[in-house]
Amino acid sequence: MSEGFGASIPKSKALFERARQVIPGGIYGHVQPSATIPGVFPYFAERGEGGYYWDVDGRKILDLMCGYGPLILGYHHQEIEEAAAIQRAKGLVFNHPASLSVELAEKLVDRVGFADWTVFGKNGSDMTTWAIQVAREHTKRSKIAVVSGAYHGVDAWCTPGKGGLILEDRVHIHTFEWNNLDSLQSLFSDYAKQFAAVVVTPFHHPAFGESELPHEGFLDDLEQLCHREGVLLVLDDIRAGFRLHAGGSHRPYGFEPDLSCYCKALANGYSISATAGKEEFRKAATRVFLTGSYWNNPVPMAASLACLEIIARESVPEHLEQMGLRLQSGISAVAKAAGVDVRWSGPPSMPYLSIRDDPNLYLIQEFAAKSLDRGVFFHPHHNWFLSQAHKEKEIDLAIEVAGDVFRSLQNG
Amino acid sequence: MSEGFGASIPKSKALFERARQVIPGGIYGHVQPSATIPGVFPYFAERGEGGYYWDVDGRKILDLMCGYGPLILGYHHQEIEEAAAIQRAKGLVFNHPASLSVELAEKLVDRVGFADWTVFGKNGSDMTTWAIQVAREHTKRSKIAVVSGAYHGVDAWCTPGKGGLILEDRVHIHTFEWNNLDSLQSLFSDYAKQFAAVVVTPFHHPAFGESELPHEGFLDDLEQLCHREGVLLVLDDIRAGFRLHAGGSHRPYGFEPDLSCYCKALANGYSISATAGKEEFRKAATRVFLTGSYWNNPVPMAASLACLEIIARESVPEHLEQMGLRLQSGISAVAKAAGVDVRWSGPPSMPYLSIRDDPNLYLIQEFAAKSLDRGVFFHPHHNWFLSQAHKEKEIDLAIEVAGDVFRSLQNG
Repeated sequence: MSEGFGASIPKSKALFERARQVIPGGIYGHVQPSATIPGVFPYFAERGEGGYYWDVDGRKILDLMCGYGPLILGYHHQEIEEAAAIQRAKGLVFNHPASLSVELAEKLVDRVGFADWTVFGKNGSDMTTWAIQVAREHTKRSKIAVVSGAYHGVDAWCTPGKGGLILEDRVHIHTFEWNNLDSLQSLFSDYAKQFAAVVVTPFHHPAFGESELPHEGFLDDLEQLCHREGVLLVLDDIRAGFRLHAGGSHRPYGFEPDLSCYCKALANGYSISATAGKEEFRKAATRVFLTGSYWNNPVPMAASLACLEIIARESVPEHLEQMGLRLQSGISAVAKAAGVDVRWSGPPSMPYLSIRDDPNLYLIQEFAAKSLDRGVFFHPHHNWFLSQAHKEKEIDLAIEVAGDVFRSLQNG
Repeated sequence: MSEGFGASIPKSKALFERARQVIPGGIYGHVQPSATIPGVFPYFAERGEGGYYWDVDGRKILDLMCGYGPLILGYHHQEIEEAAAIQRAKGLVFNHPASLSVELAEKLVDRVGFADWTVFGKNGSDMTTWAIQVAREHTKRSKIAVVSGAYHGVDAWCTPGKGGLILEDRVHIHTFEWNNLDSLQSLFSDYAKQFAAVVVTPFHHPAFGESELPHEGFLDDLEQLCHREGVLLVLDDIRAGFRLHAGGSHRPYGFEPDLSCYCKALANGYSISATAGKEEFRKAATRVFLTGSYWNNPVPMAASLACLEIIARESVPEHLEQMGLRLQSGISAVAKAAGVDVRWSGPPSMPYLSIRDDPNLYLIQEFAAKSLDRGVFFHPHHNWFLSQAHKEKEIDLAIEVAGDVFRSLQNG
């Protein structure tokens, strides 16, 4: 890498030294420094506006990560903030839900199409874990099939972490291969009538690896196989939900889950997650206890109602796709001109960029580091997220920076 | 019960009918109608102010439940709202934490005294579950001891629900009796060197049952026993934390946990939870992955910094205790005058009221129902919560209503 990396984040580094004293590792989870490139990407954020944010060192950064997904409309969207403020003046948490919980459930049920009911939580993990419990309650079976390498949250049955787990946490968790129905069929044969649920994302988006779209017919065949076997098909739409289609990601891929979990883009950053489900699983859903101290807070529900409204009214998924296609073709062109062979995977609105013949990710990391120094956040090994706040101007800025950086890669 | 119950909540009932269509059970979790008295207590809340809230039928209700705990300063506390608003203008969720995460961790470490580090989550369950994983990681043991009847959240290892569980969820969860160290010692003897953690609340507060304070020496002896056995002592201070003492509930009870979990009163209703821990468990803490889409939102952290500041500056725990003592002595006096034999348990700031010779809870339910009709929320079988917004005027109103209701119980 070029010299001088890291010199530009002194305040982030100083703050991290303080953080290390009072927080294990200083910063944990998906935003820890090692998740991007330590010493180059900021460690701490200061504020955001539209499609940009400022780090604590005062650098303005074009944000193609959107807080790892929630900011589908960009930072500080006026209509969302106004909707939240109206409810906030009434209160945050009560001894009962507010009427907004009913309105939001009605809207979600209407929006996703396949479902008859919804529940709400705070984390994505709250919902994926509850969904498999509903499947276990309904089927009276224990086993869960997940795609190898998929991320479904941080609970013991699915966390990518290794610490703190015990043998019993995963004795009934089995993996099969994305786009390979035979591998799932083998599990069903090996453990006949023992599977409660299959959990899948709408497209495969492992960390540190290229995304994989579903092959033609894969999800539809999966749905039919699950029905034949009496196994619930659980869609983990936490990362992609409402970005690919205003009605949820099962719509563009043409299949119907039994339960579907949503989170990130649901309320443009306000804390809420949801599970939607079919009528036949309502009884099991009532039997799996779920609650939390702040779950009835109507402020995120007000934000979510506004967010779902805007996503449909302003055709946000279509905008994201158009901007994603512009970004992909623009970056591909400047890469080619610089002699760099890039490869795209995943849907255009959540693109994953890799460089061919880069097995240790050195090249993509250098590209991301130098781009960040130029003020553009390209994550080196995670899909990016576009937002409604990214217009042609932002996309063209990203392409321009990418072009400059690709040329510098080749030059040394 | 007297006639006419239920006539006063037509809008709650109509909304509940809509809710039943799109939400399993209509309302779920700790706020479901069956948790209080269906048809009498409201199903939906409209707005709150100070120590009162209004239900959707327009009834003004003195709230001695505080949203089941979070509202330690009352609804819509100006200083909290201003602190949150300043951060909200900067943004809700970023690709990195904000500096407030460091400030809040520093403040919590300083405040609780025993701890060297903290982490943050969204739900109480996030923290109790993570804490036992840290204990398992540190000890390389699997078993967890909890007090029979205690509530530690909704995850599979601890939920009071029955649905969706499988055998493996609790194979290593064992129970002992509150205030009975021999029963824990027996577990340690039966499963030598197999326990990772003991999880306790600072006082025992089961649902549908009287609270029990720790006997003199119980928690101190528990701490010593855990140390001798190499077992982590995890304090679940989610319900009581910062209500009994500005430094956490281990302070007044004179013991030191190894890890302690906080939630409800941490930010006066803003969504945040925390775990604080000792230095020797920092390494294990870094190994147990934890994260969530919204966990780095600095708005609840701003609210929490302000809330912890106010709790200490304005001696809120002392105010809660004084008001609790006034409430207890006042209600005891009017009950005695009406010939009703009441019994208090738990600390005065989180009092639990029961009526002697009321094995099926009929009398306490009638008392709570009639009080609600008079505009005072006395939960019939859960500890109550006092807030800073409850002054002598509110306490005296509660006593007056209780007196009227006790007299009507005996007369009708």
